Amino acid sequence: MKTWLLSAAIVASFAAQADEGMWQPYQLPAMADELKAKGLEIDVKSISKLTEYPMNAVISLGGCTASFVSPKGLVVTNHHCAYGSIQYNSTPEKNLLKDGFLAKTYADELPATPGSRIFVTEEVTDVTDQVKSGEMNKVGNDFYKGIEQKEKALVAECEAEDGYRCKVYSFHGGLEYYLVKQMEIRDVRLTYNPAASVGKYGGDIDNWMWPRHTGDFSFYRAYVGKDGKPADFSKDNVPYEPKSFLKVSAKGVSDGDFVMVAGYPGRTNRYRTANEVENQFEWAYPEGKVLRERLIEIIKETAPEGSDDRIKYESAIAGLANYAKNFTSMIEFYGKSPMLEERKGLEQKLANWIKADKTRQSQYGETLAELDKLIAKEQQGQERDVLMSYMGYSSMMSTAGRLYRLANEKTLPDMDREPGYQERDMTNFTSGMERIERRYAPSVDKAILADLIKRYAALPSEYRLAAFDKAFAIGQPFDEAKFTKHLDNMYAKTTLSDKETRLAWMDKSVAEFKKSKDPFIQYAVSTYDERMQRELDNKQLAGDLMKVRPQYMDAIIAYNRELDKPVYADANSSLRVTIGNVKGYSPQDGLVAVPFTRLEGIVAKDTGVEPFNSPAKQLELINQKQYGDYYVKSLDSVPVNFLSTLDTTGGNSGSPTLNGRAELVGLLFDGVYESIIGDWGYDPETNRSIQVDSRYMLWVMKYLDNADNLLEEMEIVK
Amino acid sequence: MKTWLLSAAIVASFAAQADEGMWQPYQLPAMADELKAKGLEIDVKSISKLTEYPMNAVISLGGCTASFVSPKGLVVTNHHCAYGSIQYNSTPEKNLLKDGFLAKTYADELPATPGSRIFVTEEVTDVTDQVKSGEMNKVGNDFYKGIEQKEKALVAECEAEDGYRCKVYSFHGGLEYYLVKQMEIRDVRLTYNPAASVGKYGGDIDNWMWPRHTGDFSFYRAYVGKDGKPADFSKDNVPYEPKSFLKVSAKGVSDGDFVMVAGYPGRTNRYRTANEVENQFEWAYPEGKVLRERLIEIIKETAPEGSDDRIKYESAIAGLANYAKNFTSMIEFYGKSPMLEERKGLEQKLANWIKADKTRQSQYGETLAELDKLIAKEQQGQERDVLMSYMGYSSMMSTAGRLYRLANEKTLPDMDREPGYQERDMTNFTSGMERIERRYAPSVDKAILADLIKRYAALPSEYRLAAFDKAFAIGQPFDEAKFTKHLDNMYAKTTLSDKETRLAWMDKSVAEFKKSKDPFIQYAVSTYDERMQRELDNKQLAGDLMKVRPQYMDAIIAYNRELDKPVYADANSSLRVTIGNVKGYSPQDGLVAVPFTRLEGIVAKDTGVEPFNSPAKQLELINQKQYGDYYVKSLDSVPVNFLSTLDTTGGNSGSPTLNGRAELVGLLFDGVYESIIGDWGYDPETNRSIQVDSRYMLWVMKYLDNADNLLEEMEIVK
Repeated sequence: MKTWLLSAAIVASFAAQADEGMWQPYQLPAMADELKAKGLEIDVKSISKLTEYPMNAVISLGGCTASFVSPKGLVVTNHHCAYGSIQYNSTPEKNLLKDGFLAKTYADELPATPGSRIFVTEEVTDVTDQVKSGEMNKVGNDFYKGIEQKEKALVAECEAEDGYRCKVYSFHGGLEYYLVKQMEIRDVRLTYNPAASVGKYGGDIDNWMWPRHTGDFSFYRAYVGKDGKPADFSKDNVPYEPKSFLKVSAKGVSDGDFVMVAGYPGRTNRYRTANEVENQFEWAYPEGKVLRERLIEIIKETAPEGSDDRIKYESAIAGLANYAKNFTSMIEFYGKSPMLEERKGLEQKLANWIKADKTRQSQYGETLAELDKLIAKEQQGQERDVLMSYMGYSSMMSTAGRLYRLANEKTLPDMDREPGYQERDMTNFTSGMERIERRYAPSVDKAILADLIKRYAALPSEYRLAAFDKAFAIGQPFDEAKFTKHLDNMYAKTTLSDKETRLAWMDKSVAEFKKSKDPFIQYAVSTYDERMQRELDNKQLAGDLMKVRPQYMDAIIAYNRELDKPVYADANSSLRVTIGNVKGYSPQDGLVAVPFTRLEGIVAKDTGVEPFNSPAKQLELINQKQYGDYYVKSLDSVPVNFLSTLDTTGGNSGSPTLNGRAELVGLLFDGVYESIIGDWGYDPETNRSIQVDSRYMLWVMKYLDNADNLLEEMEIVK
Repeated sequence: MKTWLLSAAIVASFAAQADEGMWQPYQLPAMADELKAKGLEIDVKSISKLTEYPMNAVISLGGCTASFVSPKGLVVTNHHCAYGSIQYNSTPEKNLLKDGFLAKTYADELPATPGSRIFVTEEVTDVTDQVKSGEMNKVGNDFYKGIEQKEKALVAECEAEDGYRCKVYSFHGGLEYYLVKQMEIRDVRLTYNPAASVGKYGGDIDNWMWPRHTGDFSFYRAYVGKDGKPADFSKDNVPYEPKSFLKVSAKGVSDGDFVMVAGYPGRTNRYRTANEVENQFEWAYPEGKVLRERLIEIIKETAPEGSDDRIKYESAIAGLANYAKNFTSMIEFYGKSPMLEERKGLEQKLANWIKADKTRQSQYGETLAELDKLIAKEQQGQERDVLMSYMGYSSMMSTAGRLYRLANEKTLPDMDREPGYQERDMTNFTSGMERIERRYAPSVDKAILADLIKRYAALPSEYRLAAFDKAFAIGQPFDEAKFTKHLDNMYAKTTLSDKETRLAWMDKSVAEFKKSKDPFIQYAVSTYDERMQRELDNKQLAGDLMKVRPQYMDAIIAYNRELDKPVYADANSSLRVTIGNVKGYSPQDGLVAVPFTRLEGIVAKDTGVEPFNSPAKQLELINQKQYGDYYVKSLDSVPVNFLSTLDTTGGNSGSPTLNGRAELVGLLFDGVYESIIGDWGYDPETNRSIQVDSRYMLWVMKYLDNADNLLEEMEIVK
């Protein structure tokens, strides 16, 4: 007997209700009355204009969100967003993860991990017409390439101005295109992070969970050249002076208060078809969970706790575990939900609405059937494709593949190259090649690859790839001993684990690759054509989807327009604003999650063993009730984390949570377990975001870490 | 870092505060104003008189509490209290545990498990002076035996009236003695039990847990001879007509409402010394947890799921698991608590109070030191003693021991025999010997005994017992193969597994035992003197403790009298009344347990797999919102279980939970995990009892099980 916990109808809805919605800023003025009624005190226009306070203080780190909080380029984001940089600067002797880090002066600040960027959005332009013009008669790969060329041209034009990074974002699966222009700050430095026993308190165990007691915040600083323009790291650089910065609230919020978040949510799937839902929850998530859990096991077995190798893979483990848990929740709540039936019902309603009108019928009559046909095609061979994608966890394999691809792309004019291999990508490419150094151990890399290839070798022969098989000595039947010997030999002989060697390959020709004796380079060369053919097939399909899915979304939007419901686009890493309230929820019949946790909860959870090993000083402060300036009477303590109804997802991490006056009252860092499935449908009953409370951040800074220099630099409002 | 969750001071208190207190009924009138203010609507005198309604409707099953709920002797108690009888009547073909059972007529009712009794308390008399008179100059075993003789004499006199069972209860470790006279109803029949998937919903997983959704109730009926007096089972017996019975409330209670419980709490330890606390939590509970978990493993390995043997041991597994979990909680919360330090602090305060006054000094000056000396002595050899006590799980060993003991005791005049071996005990003794049949499998019995003896054999030689070693072929060094062969042989040859054989041995002489070739009888004979010597040593110590502990309690009572605090005695299985309110609590910072669960919570927990496998019909009723007469608007459902602040412990199971008018609003069946340590100290913040709501009971009876005959028989009030 499987039955539904969540309030079903909402999860499956095609359009926004209540606090649901990741709005493009331009959509907000139309909702002015509702926002004011909810508690927005500042002019709604200011949050719809990216070039004005407070929106121009909200920035992207590429994958995470952050915000400026001082006139001198001080940036606050999540501890887990700065994790790579903290890890990068850690050694067994000076472990910033374990001990925390505070730069008392600019000079003490440390360079963030190579490739770290701060993106300040300056312009968002609707370029739909420009992108689509002249392309709409093409199909498949031609259409895909055509759109890509248009996007590249727009990007190149936009990036003509030095120090900018531009990107065309597709909305509603290709219905609309927007060009986003961001200033790209390349000199990013680590200013302050609490110890991981504060910033990652609860670790993977508490991840996605409530009650939560994580001090998930850290500080960067943005540096620019003396001319105020982005520049590579240099001692002569100066702190960047942002156009505006957020004030930090020492007063915080209370239960029921208005809150909003501006940030860069990565991806949601709220308009996927029933077929896609079914495949994702009944095949893709279960398979992904198995693979992630296995890779974690492999890493832990190969790089034991306490080894130097383990430090290199902590970040990989965290990433794998994070989504293993995410997938587990997806599977669990899908099992309890009628999501699939509801989705089918909605598709039927849409189909009926289309059928009811001749014009609609001619416009959308075939859309869903066509879409489903393409989706079925997309799912063919997915057993193999998912294994190949997880092989990206092998640095040797992906490095070799990318280096040889670069050599090939370089034979083309820059504008014709694959995105990621253009001149504009080379800084990022280079730092990627450098970074491997600190995140690679041959024994782990090999163990991961061996496991995945063995799974691949067990697939039905129709899914096997001839060149790939040959490259890894995978015969029919599969001879495991032979394969193992072959792989051992590859790792023994390859020199790609050496940074200088990798960087040198970036400048070599196709011919030089073909002559190489490096086993991984040989793999990359011998499988190149096969890989390119698979990519072409994928692009054919992607091109077709890019034509059909916008039609489908167009139908959904038209359908909702008649119901007078605004439609927001699925998340796509572009800037969105979400609106909500501080609010608890009921995780289970008989239990209520209240919206705030307190300092005492840290002590209660503490076992002295990671991840529940608060610093001794913190425990002492709490036991002595040293609440200082951040005492909240109703809680008889200092609030640590709080819940809100905000509609967020991965990529929103680090987003400033703002009150009605746009003051920073917290940093968004997670969602509760029940809201993970929210990526596929928002449920107002259980969809809750988790924030670290600004008062806890300030309390830690002032009383635990003595970060007085930063507190003085920020504008703290009571 | 270990820190304290609960509100510490209360846990370690010597005396009652707020809702703490298991009161002897005679203590209640002194608290009349407080009880009235809390919500007691009936005259406090009625709950202090055992012979009046409602108290005379509250009965004991020996180990559980129950109550009369109809003029025809219908008895309601917990499903887990009737579990043995349900199991006893179950076969693979007709599984009452799985399918539930409802007798539609008297004739359909089934005999409860042999030895089942209903005890109706009729008199409680203070016999302190009679018991102590002439004994106070004795020490050790003489004192122990002297008190025992006095008790036996009182019991014999009391039981002169046919159909009665009497017992002398010691309060405050021997400070006071009360003689309790109970009518003993011997013909008990099973009338109705819901399926285990209702009555044990959540099973061991949810045991001690909140949120809870267990329909933990079942019905017995009491039968007597046609003359209205207790009689052995007979078809001619008639339903007993109790002096009064409880009305059952269909209206139930709400958050904050007054509730009280009358019942037979088994044992608490709220006045134990710091040394006893330390030994119990740091040695005895951890050791007990290990042994219980191991015995469960052994049973599960030896009697696999689904085997006939497993059915025989389900009850043993449940009992072992129940206290394994209990001990785990004890250990966990002790680890977070300063209980030991607080207890030491209180002892210091008491010591200071004694020292401050000459009279007190002469009266109590040496008491604590003497008590601690005896406690230290008691703990010597406890590693061995606990293993020997768990050997009681071996039916063969305990049966042989008890039978030979009986033969020896029978050589003495009845009044001189050990309690448990007097004529008055023979019915119970016989049914115990009969009952083994359905709860014994040689393979399991042997595996349990083998494991415990191996542990015993690994103890330092000073703890070893010569005769015991010889009986089990335990050499020095221990030869496991030899021992195993010996034990195999014992089980192969013993005939004690046959019921008739066991019963026959009850009538045999010591000489006949000595001639027996039965290996377990031989064990009993050869170790008899050694066992008697150990028992004598224990009685010496017990006698000394029975002199010193009352002095200690006397000091505590005198100390509290000065503070104007009433002192209740530790639980001792005698009738107590506790007073409280319906109330939730916070199990963890950021979470609140609300006081009621709802039908929907059953559906949400359901997996279809035991113990979360509600009957299909129940799930259907809930999904269709068939709340019927028991709908509660504020919950938008029917309440299932509720929380109260009532101060209860094991033995209270099955107790009627009453509202201010003494109507039955629920049955107490458990406490929350955080309150397990409450046996050692009541914490008003986290001490919560769990009740099955009367509205859920009525809903299940009416809509799920169609127990209309019983609903008509009971008096249900709106």
